[in-house]
Amino acid sequence: MILGIDIGGTTVKFGIVTNKGEILATERHDTLENAQTSEDFMGLLIDISKKYIASYPQVKGIGIGIPGQLSLDRTTLVQANNLGALNGTKIVPILKETFPDLIVRMENDANCTALGEMYFGGHEKDNFIMIALGTGVGGGVIVHRKLFIGAKGNAGEVGFLVVGPQRQVLENYLGQRHLTNYVKEELKKPVNGFSLLHSEDELTVEKVFHAAKAGDRFALNVWDYVGELIGETVVGLAHAYDITQFVIGGGVGKAFELFEASAKKTALSYFSPYYADTFELLPAGCEADTGLIGAASLVLNELETF
Amino acid sequence: MILGIDIGGTTVKFGIVTNKGEILATERHDTLENAQTSEDFMGLLIDISKKYIASYPQVKGIGIGIPGQLSLDRTTLVQANNLGALNGTKIVPILKETFPDLIVRMENDANCTALGEMYFGGHEKDNFIMIALGTGVGGGVIVHRKLFIGAKGNAGEVGFLVVGPQRQVLENYLGQRHLTNYVKEELKKPVNGFSLLHSEDELTVEKVFHAAKAGDRFALNVWDYVGELIGETVVGLAHAYDITQFVIGGGVGKAFELFEASAKKTALSYFSPYYADTFELLPAGCEADTGLIGAASLVLNELETF
Repeated sequence: MILGIDIGGTTVKFGIVTNKGEILATERHDTLENAQTSEDFMGLLIDISKKYIASYPQVKGIGIGIPGQLSLDRTTLVQANNLGALNGTKIVPILKETFPDLIVRMENDANCTALGEMYFGGHEKDNFIMIALGTGVGGGVIVHRKLFIGAKGNAGEVGFLVVGPQRQVLENYLGQRHLTNYVKEELKKPVNGFSLLHSEDELTVEKVFHAAKAGDRFALNVWDYVGELIGETVVGLAHAYDITQFVIGGGVGKAFELFEASAKKTALSYFSPYYADTFELLPAGCEADTGLIGAASLVLNELETF
Repeated sequence: MILGIDIGGTTVKFGIVTNKGEILATERHDTLENAQTSEDFMGLLIDISKKYIASYPQVKGIGIGIPGQLSLDRTTLVQANNLGALNGTKIVPILKETFPDLIVRMENDANCTALGEMYFGGHEKDNFIMIALGTGVGGGVIVHRKLFIGAKGNAGEVGFLVVGPQRQVLENYLGQRHLTNYVKEELKKPVNGFSLLHSEDELTVEKVFHAAKAGDRFALNVWDYVGELIGETVVGLAHAYDITQFVIGGGVGKAFELFEASAKKTALSYFSPYYADTFELLPAGCEADTGLIGAASLVLNELETF
């Protein structure tokens, strides 16, 4: 049993997570309200943790997921855009002081998601690359059941390979805002006038998903385009890490069925047999509370059995 | 003192390498002649190694560089295009049987070059990415003074990220044959008629280098193009490994001064301050016998002091 803490830009989620990835109890707190100062914020983390640990004395450890860059030793938040007051806070040592008998681990939130997927995604993989297509494009790289954090601790930024017709990083195409802007611009072209979608609409990725599901040719082409960009990225990542298993998650990732064929076709057009023979592209298996489950997985990864 | 063995498609080089990277004695043998069977080839390795070790009893180990893919435990050649008869040969265990008191290590040749650069390149770096621009584009990734070999042992294929205007892997632009073909095609365009170079010439990378040094505008543009492609690759690799130090080697790499500015400008146009602040692009420091020195470095990497 693990206490997971999922720190986001707007909400801090706490939850008791079992070894099967079930959430027994959970609560949310507003981030901004509590993160005015580092002391306030650590006070919140300690108070809520104490409460849960009193109720669940079987808890073996605390796992924390946090956006931004961590120190190489994973004890300190170095820099996060939305959590300015916490930058430089030695979050792990402070918690460890209060909870000396517990395992306390912290990791970047996208890395947590990858670990959560390893334990609870339903695909038995010791090596894989997670690509999380959300507001931005994040991810994590699992090598021999461990996160690969690289030279300074912030490796696996899988959304920042330069790909595609604009020679831009993947996030600049597929981050949600970028993708909807692309769709809007494309819809302005007379040739796309046949689409059910309109550039004046309040466009969302969901709308493009549903239009494609309804057979809209333009929307289907958008997902082909998404797949091509994912395919090109996958090629670079496979060669960088010698990993050919990919798991796609995040909000945009929910359209997996619509970009799968194009992504696979694109990647296979580049791969030599060494890569092609073992290449797999899968949708993420975890659906709800991936942040919380991922944070708890940090402690699992320490214990491997618990 | 180390016995280095640099196995190439045409030549096998043996050499005694000191802890300062000096080569005391060396000899070459024809690869094809000796690699008709795995037994013949291992016989050659053992005979020549015995001879050197008899002459240099201070030898602490044998380091072997070999092109192609190795088993994850680095004992066996899995697959090399030019060394068919050796595929599957347990090279390290066979040598270890004859030389039980010596350290015996084998590694992919491009990885060896990266290690050689770490020890003898003259730049004190614990983390860097080597990009070797030769017949193909190879390289190696050094994380905390160790080679990163990834999930299955063949990571760090830095020439296989999809980049550039043709959405191709770097090697398809900058492998020597590809680069000269590109130059030939460009020279056929009337707009490039002012160049000193001609598409009918027997074009080499050296000629494009010398033309650029002589101020030929077309040739200078070719090197800018090379730099852009390197710059885009560097961005992906920096985010993949969280490493911002790059060392460029290989034959095409000798034109470093001509593509440096364009490569740096391109990379910096993508990098956030986290990457830009520590970004370095350097020419390789090792010049001659990099394969042999790299192979010997494998044993150094084991000993760290010797």
